Amino acid sequence: MVLNCSDSDAKGNEIYALIKELFPICRSITGNGVRQTLEIIGKHIPLDIQEVPSGTKVFDWTVPKEWNIRDAWVKDSHGRKVIDFQKSNLHVINYSIPFQGRISMAELKSHLFCLPDHPDWIPYKTTYYEETWGFCLSHNQFLSLSDGEYQVFIDSTLTDGHLTYGECFIPGKTKDEILISTHVCHPSLANDNLSGVSTAAFLAKHISNQELRYSYRFLFIPGTIGAITWLCRNRDSVAWIKHGLVLTGVGDRGRITYKKSRRGNAEIDRAASQVLRQSADNYSIEDFSPYGYDERQYCSPGFNLPVGRFSRTSYARYPEYHTSADNLDFVSTRSLGETFERLNSIFRVLEGDQTYINLVPYCEPQLGKRGLYNQISPNQMAMLWVLNYSDGRHSLLDIAEGSTISFQSIREAADLLHQAGLLKEVSPGTK
Amino acid sequence: MVLNCSDSDAKGNEIYALIKELFPICRSITGNGVRQTLEIIGKHIPLDIQEVPSGTKVFDWTVPKEWNIRDAWVKDSHGRKVIDFQKSNLHVINYSIPFQGRISMAELKSHLFCLPDHPDWIPYKTTYYEETWGFCLSHNQFLSLSDGEYQVFIDSTLTDGHLTYGECFIPGKTKDEILISTHVCHPSLANDNLSGVSTAAFLAKHISNQELRYSYRFLFIPGTIGAITWLCRNRDSVAWIKHGLVLTGVGDRGRITYKKSRRGNAEIDRAASQVLRQSADNYSIEDFSPYGYDERQYCSPGFNLPVGRFSRTSYARYPEYHTSADNLDFVSTRSLGETFERLNSIFRVLEGDQTYINLVPYCEPQLGKRGLYNQISPNQMAMLWVLNYSDGRHSLLDIAEGSTISFQSIREAADLLHQAGLLKEVSPGTK
Amino acid sequence: MVLNCSDSDAKGNEIYALIKELFPICRSITGNGVRQTLEIIGKHIPLDIQEVPSGTKVFDWTVPKEWNIRDAWVKDSHGRKVIDFQKSNLHVINYSIPFQGRISMAELKSHLFCLPDHPDWIPYKTTYYEETWGFCLSHNQFLSLSDGEYQVFIDSTLTDGHLTYGECFIPGKTKDEILISTHVCHPSLANDNLSGVSTAAFLAKHISNQELRYSYRFLFIPGTIGAITWLCRNRDSVAWIKHGLVLTGVGDRGRITYKKSRRGNAEIDRAASQVLRQSADNYSIEDFSPYGYDERQYCSPGFNLPVGRFSRTSYARYPEYHTSADNLDFVSTRSLGETFERLNSIFRVLEGDQTYINLVPYCEPQLGKRGLYNQISPNQMAMLWVLNYSDGRHSLLDIAEGSTISFQSIREAADLLHQAGLLKEVSPGTK
Repeated sequence: MVLNCSDSDAKGNEIYALIKELFPICRSITGNGVRQTLEIIGKHIPLDIQEVPSGTKVFDWTVPKEWNIRDAWVKDSHGRKVIDFQKSNLHVINYSIPFQGRISMAELKSHLFCLPDHPDWIPYKTTYYEETWGFCLSHNQFLSLSDGEYQVFIDSTLTDGHLTYGECFIPGKTKDEILISTHVCHPSLANDNLSGVSTAAFLAKHISNQELRYSYRFLFIPGTIGAITWLCRNRDSVAWIKHGLVLTGVGDRGRITYKKSRRGNAEIDRAASQVLRQSADNYSIEDFSPYGYDERQYCSPGFNLPVGRFSRTSYARYPEYHTSADNLDFVSTRSLGETFERLNSIFRVLEGDQTYINLVPYCEPQLGKRGLYNQISPNQMAMLWVLNYSDGRHSLLDIAEGSTISFQSIREAADLLHQAGLLKEVSPGTK
Repeated sequence: MVLNCSDSDAKGNEIYALIKELFPICRSITGNGVRQTLEIIGKHIPLDIQEVPSGTKVFDWTVPKEWNIRDAWVKDSHGRKVIDFQKSNLHVINYSIPFQGRISMAELKSHLFCLPDHPDWIPYKTTYYEETWGFCLSHNQFLSLSDGEYQVFIDSTLTDGHLTYGECFIPGKTKDEILISTHVCHPSLANDNLSGVSTAAFLAKHISNQELRYSYRFLFIPGTIGAITWLCRNRDSVAWIKHGLVLTGVGDRGRITYKKSRRGNAEIDRAASQVLRQSADNYSIEDFSPYGYDERQYCSPGFNLPVGRFSRTSYARYPEYHTSADNLDFVSTRSLGETFERLNSIFRVLEGDQTYINLVPYCEPQLGKRGLYNQISPNQMAMLWVLNYSDGRHSLLDIAEGSTISFQSIREAADLLHQAGLLKEVSPGTK
Repeated sequence: MVLNCSDSDAKGNEIYALIKELFPICRSITGNGVRQTLEIIGKHIPLDIQEVPSGTKVFDWTVPKEWNIRDAWVKDSHGRKVIDFQKSNLHVINYSIPFQGRISMAELKSHLFCLPDHPDWIPYKTTYYEETWGFCLSHNQFLSLSDGEYQVFIDSTLTDGHLTYGECFIPGKTKDEILISTHVCHPSLANDNLSGVSTAAFLAKHISNQELRYSYRFLFIPGTIGAITWLCRNRDSVAWIKHGLVLTGVGDRGRITYKKSRRGNAEIDRAASQVLRQSADNYSIEDFSPYGYDERQYCSPGFNLPVGRFSRTSYARYPEYHTSADNLDFVSTRSLGETFERLNSIFRVLEGDQTYINLVPYCEPQLGKRGLYNQISPNQMAMLWVLNYSDGRHSLLDIAEGSTISFQSIREAADLLHQAGLLKEVSPGTK
């Protein structure tokens, strides 16, 4: 049950290295970019790769055609490549259909997107459900284009194929599961979401050789359609999910943001709040809203799973969001290490939370005769709290919340009292 | 179900014109003043006039004798009228018994009332349940009285007769009722309560040619004894009252004050709060207390009806309250128009509140294929909220409260989703 | 039911005089000091003295051996007494075993305790559950000791005997009890806890000749082991305890602190809060925590009795705590008188709290015809609150809380309405 955390800076460096390795790949919600990404992750953790055919009905949705791209460019009348996919995979609108031809500047313009407010950045755009094509470029690049004819070439395919996702399951003592879900569909964007992907991989690796109460399931899936596909294929077993987190944008330098599950007071919500409160960091806790990442699917009313979202700066609250500025410089090893540590602490709370019954409930037990009385011990007060509130109705997390003593101290006090025969564990579900 | 509001300034002018027409009449809790008032209101809306005989037992009370007055004055020893009912009906204490005779200044003084703090204002006083007589006058008028004998004349009658009230019932699709109650017993006071009387009349007129879910019942009744009489005679049908408002003092220039029903969290309380919160106005929401206007009767513990009170400046919190300064200048067409609009909005919330079930509750439905996906539409977010919370346990008002999106946007989103077949209405009462 | 409070300053003087009388006695958790103390208290109130043999099992604890001391000193090589029990009984660690012998300065030092931060104060220390001996002295005294041999003499006994406590039971109309518990085990410390002991004695005296709804039980017991012993011997009758207070440190000049029972919203918690809120004093209300005085035992999870703690400055939050500076100057007659008055007011709330049913619940009753209508009476508003909320679900204390009218006014209004036949008392327990 002990999830020890190794040095967080070292962990931050490891996570960063994997982000760097995955960065150049052009991912999308389907296609070889995801396969290649999962292959690399699979070197770190055992990954079960699933391929779901295009056209498969998944609830209200249909698995789309598979998209792949090899190259794309725009050449001016002098034959110079003025936009080049090889320089950045953000240049092509994700899911652009194949195209080639000579077109006028006027026509080209209707296929170009840039950000006048950030003239050096390339925006990231997608066209999953509308069959069209286009290019993204920096505003300065756009301004440098002169009138005349342009040659356009998009060497992509959009055909029946598969949607690909990876699943890493780490069995614990019980079938009760903790779900970690992270989207793996964005191309060269570091924070959104290689930070989540890489952190999830190292969390899975970290806990895989520890004794676990819960089973853990890590999903590396395309956003929206991937989560919907997974939920549809696993709808009969989601009841095992007792706690869950969506990991997105966990590497930027902003403060940690936890967004509560739709339930609002699920144990995962309380465990995350507890860990953040005990940390010295600045942080933010947000109520659930039906917008954001895949918590939208896990918390849809038919499922209403206890799944929160763990991020740093909330999506779309930083200008670099969905632009080429979300690059390898935008994420920090320190933030990644800290994120890793906090997530590990949340797991520790969930693993360690128990409800006990004080077996000596009439007056206080005499701690002195059991060698547990030491007024200057920091555990002394924690022991009194655990004894007084262990009436079968308060879990250790409840007691930590009520006492404002750290969960870890409460957990240690409970261990001492349990060893002394003063506490009995309430079987889970009795509470 | 759509209650469209016409231009509020024009409405304010109409309401004001009726106040002006009703202002000169000397009303009381019984008598011809009320009859004459109801007759004028009856030109705007269909009004059912009830006459309840004096002596009728109504719960713990008895309908009093009917009071009427034709004239009253005090003349000094030179025969000059120093107090004259024809100049202001506030000069005679309401319900003064008939009197005539010559009395000394000393004796007269024991029957005179004025306001030294506001030397130009005439106070408004009543003596419903004590058979006596008296005059009100301005402090300056009082100071000008010299010693000597005075001739007093009060040409009133206090005899068995009737208590009169008017009722306007506008049937809707259901028997469930919204009650609007306003007191009609005060003489020449504009804000208290011709503002409530006239606003209620125009609200009734406004909605009477609209398609309504609820039936609406407007009561134009004497304060206290009127409400008690009405409740006594209708005790078996009050269960149809699902929401209610007492309207008093709605024309002054102060901010709107909503006083909650005794239940504290009735739908009317939440609808009023919602409307005021969405308005840009400054406003105040007060908890229930067992003092005030006829909400005292509707919210007595035996009834405990969901009836709140809608006012502007709270009664007795403005110095003009119950004085001749509560005149036609004290009310403003703008305030009246705004009050009208807010009340209409409250009706719209009550009419439009529904609980739905999302028929595609597992993951989000694909809005795009239904033409409902448009990221820049203000309805997009509202649709996500409605879909996520339409689990049969949250009404649209709940969702508006939770999302802080306006009720109107939530209602519009629900309409779009309902048309698209994504929502099913929960039958009322199932919630 | 009326507990009238006599002049609080006079009461403060009486309470102080008893503190002064009890101050010199060397008390401990057992022994003649407690017996002598109870004998003096017994001159004021009827006290049932209980003697419980050493070795008696009380829940998880065992009644200890009885400790008595006659004399103790340390002499230097010149035969001068450098530490003398006769000068202050704090000089000997409470429960020190008998000892006599000549020892070196080095060895002596390991048995000496002082407070460098407060060089003139003698600390108070105990060694109840470890058989050892020692002396406490001021830091200045300690600094004046020179090297050399010292003669130590402790004329104490620690042998099988008894634990002694006193109980004063004042029967009321019902068997339902209010428990007042105060620890009587500290030697010459004025605030902790002769203030509690003496205040409890005078409270018992004060109410003993009044008509009481509740029975009152005052316990004068050794801290911790005394409370445990009492609870063990009375475990079958604690269900009669409906409300309770632990009284400690009630004489210092700090503000009153009320610590809530473990239940957090027990009637005693609400009554105490109500009284403090209505007083003009600065005060503090604390949540329950499983540390402190004998509320730890009364609120242990097996009992969970509705027992709060009434103190002035919280224990250990004043530097004089557990030192010779907690002397007769540290307590004030004014504070004692005020404490007495507040406690008496809390009793008044508990005695006077009732739940009524309004017998005229449909609309307001006509107060005028019963002579209860007087708009300028302060009771008028209280009457409306009592009538409106007397639906069998709100007690007078609930109504006082909701209205922010003083409990006393609410109680008086209820009396008037009850006399007028408008209210019926709900039998206790029906609520």
